[in-house]
Amino acid sequence: MKTFAILTSGGDAPGMNAAIRAAARTGFRNNVRMLGAMHGFRGLVEDDFIELDRRSISNIIQTGGSILRSSRCDEFETVEGRAKALENCRRRGVDGLILIGGDGTMKGALAFETEGSPPSVGLPGTIDNDIEGTEYTIGFDTAVNTALRAIDQIRDTAEAMERMFFIETMGRRSGAIALTAGIAGGGNVVIVPEIKTDIPKVAKTLLDDREAGATSLLVIVSEGDSAGGAYEIAAKVKELTGLDAHVTILGHIQRGGSPTAQDRIIASVLGVTAVEDLLAGRHGHLLGWKCHAVTRIPYAEARTSTSSLPVEILQHADMLIT
Amino acid sequence: MKTFAILTSGGDAPGMNAAIRAAARTGFRNNVRMLGAMHGFRGLVEDDFIELDRRSISNIIQTGGSILRSSRCDEFETVEGRAKALENCRRRGVDGLILIGGDGTMKGALAFETEGSPPSVGLPGTIDNDIEGTEYTIGFDTAVNTALRAIDQIRDTAEAMERMFFIETMGRRSGAIALTAGIAGGGNVVIVPEIKTDIPKVAKTLLDDREAGATSLLVIVSEGDSAGGAYEIAAKVKELTGLDAHVTILGHIQRGGSPTAQDRIIASVLGVTAVEDLLAGRHGHLLGWKCHAVTRIPYAEARTSTSSLPVEILQHADMLIT
Amino acid sequence: MKTFAILTSGGDAPGMNAAIRAAARTGFRNNVRMLGAMHGFRGLVEDDFIELDRRSISNIIQTGGSILRSSRCDEFETVEGRAKALENCRRRGVDGLILIGGDGTMKGALAFETEGSPPSVGLPGTIDNDIEGTEYTIGFDTAVNTALRAIDQIRDTAEAMERMFFIETMGRRSGAIALTAGIAGGGNVVIVPEIKTDIPKVAKTLLDDREAGATSLLVIVSEGDSAGGAYEIAAKVKELTGLDAHVTILGHIQRGGSPTAQDRIIASVLGVTAVEDLLAGRHGHLLGWKCHAVTRIPYAEARTSTSSLPVEILQHADMLIT
Amino acid sequence: MKTFAILTSGGDAPGMNAAIRAAARTGFRNNVRMLGAMHGFRGLVEDDFIELDRRSISNIIQTGGSILRSSRCDEFETVEGRAKALENCRRRGVDGLILIGGDGTMKGALAFETEGSPPSVGLPGTIDNDIEGTEYTIGFDTAVNTALRAIDQIRDTAEAMERMFFIETMGRRSGAIALTAGIAGGGNVVIVPEIKTDIPKVAKTLLDDREAGATSLLVIVSEGDSAGGAYEIAAKVKELTGLDAHVTILGHIQRGGSPTAQDRIIASVLGVTAVEDLLAGRHGHLLGWKCHAVTRIPYAEARTSTSSLPVEILQHADMLIT
Repeated sequence: MKTFAILTSGGDAPGMNAAIRAAARTGFRNNVRMLGAMHGFRGLVEDDFIELDRRSISNIIQTGGSILRSSRCDEFETVEGRAKALENCRRRGVDGLILIGGDGTMKGALAFETEGSPPSVGLPGTIDNDIEGTEYTIGFDTAVNTALRAIDQIRDTAEAMERMFFIETMGRRSGAIALTAGIAGGGNVVIVPEIKTDIPKVAKTLLDDREAGATSLLVIVSEGDSAGGAYEIAAKVKELTGLDAHVTILGHIQRGGSPTAQDRIIASVLGVTAVEDLLAGRHGHLLGWKCHAVTRIPYAEARTSTSSLPVEILQHADMLIT
Repeated sequence: MKTFAILTSGGDAPGMNAAIRAAARTGFRNNVRMLGAMHGFRGLVEDDFIELDRRSISNIIQTGGSILRSSRCDEFETVEGRAKALENCRRRGVDGLILIGGDGTMKGALAFETEGSPPSVGLPGTIDNDIEGTEYTIGFDTAVNTALRAIDQIRDTAEAMERMFFIETMGRRSGAIALTAGIAGGGNVVIVPEIKTDIPKVAKTLLDDREAGATSLLVIVSEGDSAGGAYEIAAKVKELTGLDAHVTILGHIQRGGSPTAQDRIIASVLGVTAVEDLLAGRHGHLLGWKCHAVTRIPYAEARTSTSSLPVEILQHADMLIT
Repeated sequence: MKTFAILTSGGDAPGMNAAIRAAARTGFRNNVRMLGAMHGFRGLVEDDFIELDRRSISNIIQTGGSILRSSRCDEFETVEGRAKALENCRRRGVDGLILIGGDGTMKGALAFETEGSPPSVGLPGTIDNDIEGTEYTIGFDTAVNTALRAIDQIRDTAEAMERMFFIETMGRRSGAIALTAGIAGGGNVVIVPEIKTDIPKVAKTLLDDREAGATSLLVIVSEGDSAGGAYEIAAKVKELTGLDAHVTILGHIQRGGSPTAQDRIIASVLGVTAVEDLLAGRHGHLLGWKCHAVTRIPYAEARTSTSSLPVEILQHADMLIT
Repeated sequence: MKTFAILTSGGDAPGMNAAIRAAARTGFRNNVRMLGAMHGFRGLVEDDFIELDRRSISNIIQTGGSILRSSRCDEFETVEGRAKALENCRRRGVDGLILIGGDGTMKGALAFETEGSPPSVGLPGTIDNDIEGTEYTIGFDTAVNTALRAIDQIRDTAEAMERMFFIETMGRRSGAIALTAGIAGGGNVVIVPEIKTDIPKVAKTLLDDREAGATSLLVIVSEGDSAGGAYEIAAKVKELTGLDAHVTILGHIQRGGSPTAQDRIIASVLGVTAVEDLLAGRHGHLLGWKCHAVTRIPYAEARTSTSSLPVEILQHADMLIT
């Protein structure tokens, strides 16, 4: 009987539990013993595992967070830490690893494989949607819809009070959440790290929109923009336009919540595939989603996307965001 | 100055307003006069148009339904009806048409073009996601998430009372909503029209799951299944299993509600593209969405999909639905 | 050290878990051992108890359903069944009982106390809001808001298609959900069991509203109306008005879902009070909520309310529902 | 034929549109001409009115914000400003005023009546629930539920990452939102302006909870707390506990969104009553809600509540918040 271990690493993302559930169910069907390593790589280093059974994965598909907890683990970034992890995997008889996380997690997976880890398969678990080779990462759709609901709510009061708002979404290096939620939320301007921000142009657009009759003005700002956070940009725009500016930082609400259908479905399909790959001897790659199909990306290529913004959406953004 | 008219036809779908807004904004930017024909093709036949301006499309991106209303129009299915529509388009100086609807709408569009209608472009507006050549139709993602929330709620009471539920989704010829919401909702069985239903096997699966410890049992049934609606299937399964069966028909809640991010974004991109196509002299096709990009499907090929179920999801469904 | 047992009986209601959590926390603070009897009174009869600890009640305040499961128990309605339950309570050393449920549960509590049960306190757990002496029952606010969201969604499509809908809510003997969700949902007519339904008048109101310009027509029907369910009423109204009629039965979605703030808060306050009452030797009553304060209703008076409709709301309903 | 004017003033609150709709419908039924003054008192001062009809109030019951816009108006706080407003009311033939807003609005109403304004009735429209004499203000229930959903989402990630969060709600002088959402959200500590904050005690509680096994730690902080905003409190607690602290400011999402059932219902009942009162010659008061009934509070007594915290909830808070 084989033994596989699964873990969630880095920032948690809605849909991780759906992936864990799908992988575990597929393992059980194939007579594989399924372990969970707690707190990401820390569980490997510190030998903190739980045994998964039908009961532990029941009623979790609809929940945010991760039943296996998550964390960033400095020790695993050292050779010594990974050696401890390897030792623990061997002692536990782990024949395969399923690693759910972002690009940092895939970097760790690559280093670990090079040093002789059990065969492993990665799943893209990050709300930022910023990994090369996959159109989609687990948690992104939920985060965007959470940001969107917040924008819808802020528009209500912005309309009633005829106000200008700067709304900061998550996404330190990637503008995907800001762009997507900003277009869907009918924002007047979207500011993302991938594109250099021209503050005077932003100010002009907002004044033009106000002149054209816009009651409320909404600027969606990605966390990581080079022009500074939402507060700084708001201050500059206020100075240039003379309009009062309000700021809202959406923050960690974007990480939680019950996952959307898309996050549950794709997480589930990838979770099943991860176990199937390990059983078939395929490993050393991240599983992605492209053109409605599973795709495999070698760990070395699963880098942070330099631009995660969907080209088609960018091309039309100009018409959609004034 | 050119004049384009836009209409929504057939069953309404969340995201239609986002498409109308995006098309109108793109028209205004390009100095096109934008009209709305009310109630689908009926507006063409009965000469019922409104003038769109910035104000009429403001604050609609987040709303369900259609500001242009929708309906099915028997008269437009006759040669005489379409002749009247053509006459009205000419008198109004309509240079281009944007038609949002399902496969029936595209059939109408094809007939109308053959008979000399103004150039037209179609947009896939139907919650059923059942059109050949596009991975996605406007409204599908919202409908799935609405069905999913309902399944989540029913599971709460099913768990507490240890009950078996049959939940019927929309989708007369297409099992896409049932399959997607059913997998995402952690259903025990999903019943779709594309696959012949084997009631004794369904009964066995449910008994096995109960034996394996499942507290609640959820069967997701697509409206159009050949085995009969949810009530009939529930009755048969009850007889075979001896388990009490409860039935819920989700019904029209699946048509309404504020559209999800995906429905707003893709509807918006398609809306922009429709106007750009008309301006560039491209017409006679439905705009679809495939591999994160716009695709063009000639009207004649925009048939109902014989199987709209995503292959990758189907392949893994077996592991996901017990 | 004292031992209290808690159970949930009858139809489950969102907020039951918040009540369980609050009671258990108050017990732990006061050095009381807290047991949970599974499946309502069945747990007493069949000696099916679990031990509650901090872990078993963590992260449940936000969940629908009941971690103690619920059911109706025929055996407990017999003298023999209650004798078994009493025997089990004694053997387990149960010094106090907390019973969460509707009027049926309170009837059981009264019978049980008469026959020498441990001191007990009841909590009103039913979505129907139909118990004499309390303005509020746990689960009602969540059920109303769920019905309301459904009505809002149906209105989207009813407006777009210019349709008439009959929407059936739960409430077999009580029109509270239908009336409240119906007014809040801007329904054109609300039909409740407490008021005799005059079908021709309903038809006239709908025709008048349509004439006055109403695009959509929504009739909210309580499950238990004497005029028949939504289907029958719709058929009659269709005949009288000549308007097409669509029907949606909201069903069990109204039982589940994450409880609203009000359901969690009042459930929590009542849960704390139940333990305090038992510790102080107060028992034999249902805890209710009236004028922003806890109220105590002797079991014998905790009957089904003959009219649970709030007087003030009824008085103004005429202006609110055309 | 009489003429009444209605306005919304101060910060907007979900449910204001339901009140406008109910008042207007009641006016139409009683053959009253209904005007809307735009932007609160500014509409009176600047003679900015619209005529309300069935169409302008259709499909607004479910919307946040205010169709009449809102603002704070400095000019109306001067004798000269109010004289202009009076002049405009006379010229327009306004026989009665309905004023929806917070305590500032009621102060304005009192001054205006003293100087000869048309008879007026106030409605409590503020999310803060901080007006003497009424248990309830329009918008409070929606704001609390919005804050609660955000807390639920943050708990997901706080649990997964085992983190401590400080979540700041609205409520500059009133802790009602923080206390209610904090208890309902299962917060570990709630910090409100009505109660002096003892930071070392807060730190001790959090360490005790962590020791007792709490995975996540949530502190709900009311905007106006004397101990400083959430950032300052978090910094101090971090220093005392050695635990990492994350901060989220919920901000303006709490003002918007579709109103809950309770906000729509009570707003509607008060809207009807306002018109009935004016027709019956009753005026000079704020309409409140107490013990499930309408209550009338003379403007002079409609002060900010020094403590808006519900006594019963406060008394039990100790058990509910560790």
